[in-house]
Amino acid sequence: MSLKWMSLLLLIQVMYCFNAGSCGKVVVLPMEYSHWLNVKIILDELVQRGHEVTVLTSSAAVHVDSGKSSPFKFETFPTPLTTKEFERHFKHSVNIWTYEFPKYSIWKLYSKMQSMFEEHSDVLESLCKYMIFNEKLRKTLQESKFDVLLADPVVPCGRPTTILELMAKADIWLIRTYWDFDFPRPLLPNFEFVGGLHCKPAKPLPEEMEKFVQSSGDQGVVVFSLGSIVSNLTEERANTIASGLAQIPQKVLWRYEGPKPETLGSNTRLYKWIPQNDLLGHPKTKAFITHGGTNGVYEAIYHGVPMVGIPLFVDQPDNIARMKAKGAAVRLDFTRFSSEELINALKTVINNPFYKENAMKLSRIHHDQPVKPLDRAVFWVEFVMRHKGAKHLRPAVHDLNWFQYHSLDVIGFLLACVATAIFIFTRCCLFCCRKFPKSRKKKRE
Amino acid sequence: MSLKWMSLLLLIQVMYCFNAGSCGKVVVLPMEYSHWLNVKIILDELVQRGHEVTVLTSSAAVHVDSGKSSPFKFETFPTPLTTKEFERHFKHSVNIWTYEFPKYSIWKLYSKMQSMFEEHSDVLESLCKYMIFNEKLRKTLQESKFDVLLADPVVPCGRPTTILELMAKADIWLIRTYWDFDFPRPLLPNFEFVGGLHCKPAKPLPEEMEKFVQSSGDQGVVVFSLGSIVSNLTEERANTIASGLAQIPQKVLWRYEGPKPETLGSNTRLYKWIPQNDLLGHPKTKAFITHGGTNGVYEAIYHGVPMVGIPLFVDQPDNIARMKAKGAAVRLDFTRFSSEELINALKTVINNPFYKENAMKLSRIHHDQPVKPLDRAVFWVEFVMRHKGAKHLRPAVHDLNWFQYHSLDVIGFLLACVATAIFIFTRCCLFCCRKFPKSRKKKRE
Repeated sequence: MSLKWMSLLLLIQVMYCFNAGSCGKVVVLPMEYSHWLNVKIILDELVQRGHEVTVLTSSAAVHVDSGKSSPFKFETFPTPLTTKEFERHFKHSVNIWTYEFPKYSIWKLYSKMQSMFEEHSDVLESLCKYMIFNEKLRKTLQESKFDVLLADPVVPCGRPTTILELMAKADIWLIRTYWDFDFPRPLLPNFEFVGGLHCKPAKPLPEEMEKFVQSSGDQGVVVFSLGSIVSNLTEERANTIASGLAQIPQKVLWRYEGPKPETLGSNTRLYKWIPQNDLLGHPKTKAFITHGGTNGVYEAIYHGVPMVGIPLFVDQPDNIARMKAKGAAVRLDFTRFSSEELINALKTVINNPFYKENAMKLSRIHHDQPVKPLDRAVFWVEFVMRHKGAKHLRPAVHDLNWFQYHSLDVIGFLLACVATAIFIFTRCCLFCCRKFPKSRKKKRE
Repeated sequence: MSLKWMSLLLLIQVMYCFNAGSCGKVVVLPMEYSHWLNVKIILDELVQRGHEVTVLTSSAAVHVDSGKSSPFKFETFPTPLTTKEFERHFKHSVNIWTYEFPKYSIWKLYSKMQSMFEEHSDVLESLCKYMIFNEKLRKTLQESKFDVLLADPVVPCGRPTTILELMAKADIWLIRTYWDFDFPRPLLPNFEFVGGLHCKPAKPLPEEMEKFVQSSGDQGVVVFSLGSIVSNLTEERANTIASGLAQIPQKVLWRYEGPKPETLGSNTRLYKWIPQNDLLGHPKTKAFITHGGTNGVYEAIYHGVPMVGIPLFVDQPDNIARMKAKGAAVRLDFTRFSSEELINALKTVINNPFYKENAMKLSRIHHDQPVKPLDRAVFWVEFVMRHKGAKHLRPAVHDLNWFQYHSLDVIGFLLACVATAIFIFTRCCLFCCRKFPKSRKKKRE
């Protein structure tokens, strides 16, 4: 089984914990930013259903918040890294990816990518070490006798192990997509596609926001966000975008934390935070300008809103490529697009019914499932607890080595049989050739 | 995608009918015997939910019964073949498979199998022709404007076509197994595993039967059936079985239509028909002697009853091999087993807790699904009606030819690139070799 790196980012791993004890004790090894937002939805539901949830997190955590009002228990292990440093490191990687990578030639890109990944994995490896070698934490975890471990293995951390070994140990994989978003391909039965589990019907907007949205009249509004990591832009990019948005007939709600761009039009309002799901579910919303993160794309699918995709990094270009292929998005190249291109892209997805129709088609597919994604995710976490794993879904391939996987043992055996048969046949022929001339000669004598 | 013949027998195909019209009109092309019993469960549920079900069947049908009390509409097309002849033909094939095939050497078996298959497919092809070339029927079907076609494509019948083309046209495949029965392997997302959809909690037994079952005391009972096709045995086999059964401490309920075997014990009762599911769900039932048909095996899984498998033909050896590998069955060789072997097999599955434990484990897996198999089957039939197909689940592989499927076009292009590069490089080298000696000579001059 081969899985490319990009797909791994979309995986959440559910593993059976070998310290089986009393039921309903869940331990979670989460990731930061949008990944945490996604896993948190599952954890909230598990707490609602009476399970005890313990979250393993470092003292440098950014979004994984161990605040007092949290319904989860937290096991926070200390690290010399501060939250500020960790956040700065994340944003630094994102900036390199967003602004520098597109400038490089394909040859230079590879070495630059490698050095960025090395730096990134150094930081995450150090965090991993502070967890693994924390004796007190290890003892607490062992004594807790958890029933299930829910891990988001974007960055593998543990025992000495390989990524394949880690994958083989998971009982159930909860995948952050579904067939509204993904393309059909063969998959193993312990893969459960729960994309969009965080989506909900829209709630009413804050009063001021609702007033602004209603003021758009029949033209409606455009929602614009680049996700939970990117809240700031270079002055040049911000002004290009703002001047483009100023020229469209729609009102625009833009999540942006940077300084107000000079070219900002009166139809555009900046917000440090927007209720994205509620906005996308608003009947006045005509389009969504997005960086193509899985969570945002799913909210657009859920509410049937066509997209203008401006992918930045990691799986985002891939996500937007999918939405484009399904006819629900137009793609812009972040470092290069002009105001005119932005205007044209918005005109296309808003005025050409093709895009709205396709977005609605994806929405219908998403809503027409026998069980909702969140309920399926929770079902399989509970299944692993109830049955102490899901071994009946484990493919035998995990017990084969590469030699057996490629049937080389069988092929080798068959080749050996053929070789033996040829050898014996040749020997027999040679033997006969030697014998018969003699016997003929004897007869003649 | 490759699917072996055996698996095909377990498939039910749901195809979107191109004559889309008013909602809820289902047309069915069923198969005989156990296949019909299985599909009928889905059809009953569809009728319950208000859909109109039309069954296409020949005048020679055996089990597909167009009796007055049926909740379905029937479109019966005439054939010169009578029901008696059709039934005789089926039983003849089964007899050859059961009694003659095991006698042949592997070399002879192939030619015998081929001739049997040819004879069998001749009969079914003639039935197919009587349907396809029936102008009146064709007109009726066209005017009916069905929303969905449910077909059981054991024997492909239609337009001129290949099995692969037929498979590619199906929107959803309902598979008659699940992961309690099957082994995990990669599959496409338009495959829905609905094995055991016919299983239900046990109803009370008829009074006389309940009395007999209760008379078994703590020893309990053994249920014995060889399925809906085989109801008769040779005298020798019947007596071997009967004398074996006579020596066990359990009471035995045996579904058997042949003459009473001489060696039949007082603990064994023969029945022309048994309420198999209700018997398997009875707390007194200790074991099930089965030919390994999918329906019977699933009833045993549902109720957690260990099995003695006596597979006869088609997919039955495969089914029993699965149950044996999962530790819920012991297998006997039909033409050869002795009374002692039968006794030992029954003792093993009844007295060794390993078999009961594994049967119960499969039962727990079967019952612990987010949605019941029948509800999932009906959901996907209705989905195809609602969405006029399920094109979003159709893998792109169906649009590739064999050349593209094996990436031969890509490999060819890359090889051509390498060849061109080598050609140009060699030419350049030759050119340089010719030029430089001359220029050196010139310099010397």
